[in-house]
Amino acid sequence: MNAYTYEEMEVGRKESFTVQVTEADMDAFRAVTGDGNPLHADDGFARDKGYEGKVAFGMLTASYLSTLAGVYLPGERSLIQSVETKFLKPVYPGDTLSVSGEITEKNDTYSLIFVKAEIRNQKGEKVLRGKLQIQVI
Amino acid sequence: MNAYTYEEMEVGRKESFTVQVTEADMDAFRAVTGDGNPLHADDGFARDKGYEGKVAFGMLTASYLSTLAGVYLPGERSLIQSVETKFLKPVYPGDTLSVSGEITEKNDTYSLIFVKAEIRNQKGEKVLRGKLQIQVI
Repeated sequence: MNAYTYEEMEVGRKESFTVQVTEADMDAFRAVTGDGNPLHADDGFARDKGYEGKVAFGMLTASYLSTLAGVYLPGERSLIQSVETKFLKPVYPGDTLSVSGEITEKNDTYSLIFVKAEIRNQKGEKVLRGKLQIQVI
Repeated sequence: MNAYTYEEMEVGRKESFTVQVTEADMDAFRAVTGDGNPLHADDGFARDKGYEGKVAFGMLTASYLSTLAGVYLPGERSLIQSVETKFLKPVYPGDTLSVSGEITEKNDTYSLIFVKAEIRNQKGEKVLRGKLQIQVI
């Protein structure tokens, strides 16, 4: 786990990691949130809606932004203040995602960093675009 | 689970539910995301940072917006396109959260609804403010 101080966080710094979305992750997310929507549980339902099969929860994919901030950028001193996220393409269980972020701006008064994030699948397709405001505590 | 059609989704419609954040939820979220940040795992670390004890993951709280859309508003026909969320106050394991949303706008061309969401704790304090753009499929 990184433990960058605010001073060490310069604009342009990038961090990334990869993670696979498993069926077990889907089940755990469903259990935690109570989101039993069939798009994420029923292959037949998802195919009827035009997908290859059941689709990963968008907010599960977005949850990797928690890891991006809390483990990598800045790591230990992370306190996420806000997140904006846009879901661009479906993610399927089994997909391997590359999660990356780059510092675009800083606010010295409040020790804030602004991070532009993106998540791509194993085909290189951008599946999520995000922005985070993080206080370095 | 609700299964509202786009036509049934009128501006002003509200839905809400309550959920308790448990230690098991924290553990599951940590396992799924790989976010081992000590703010969410170590009471002593969190107290040193000025909190009552370990703090729930912000993106775990935000994940209840998945349920708000996928089960309630509109329910079965939900396809979340984007989410904006701001974390206003810390959430602690054991807190009971009231998650609510209201349709503020519609887009007939793309069958979109825009939902203003908020999450309050058992003391009535607003802990999260959010906005969702959801396609009704």
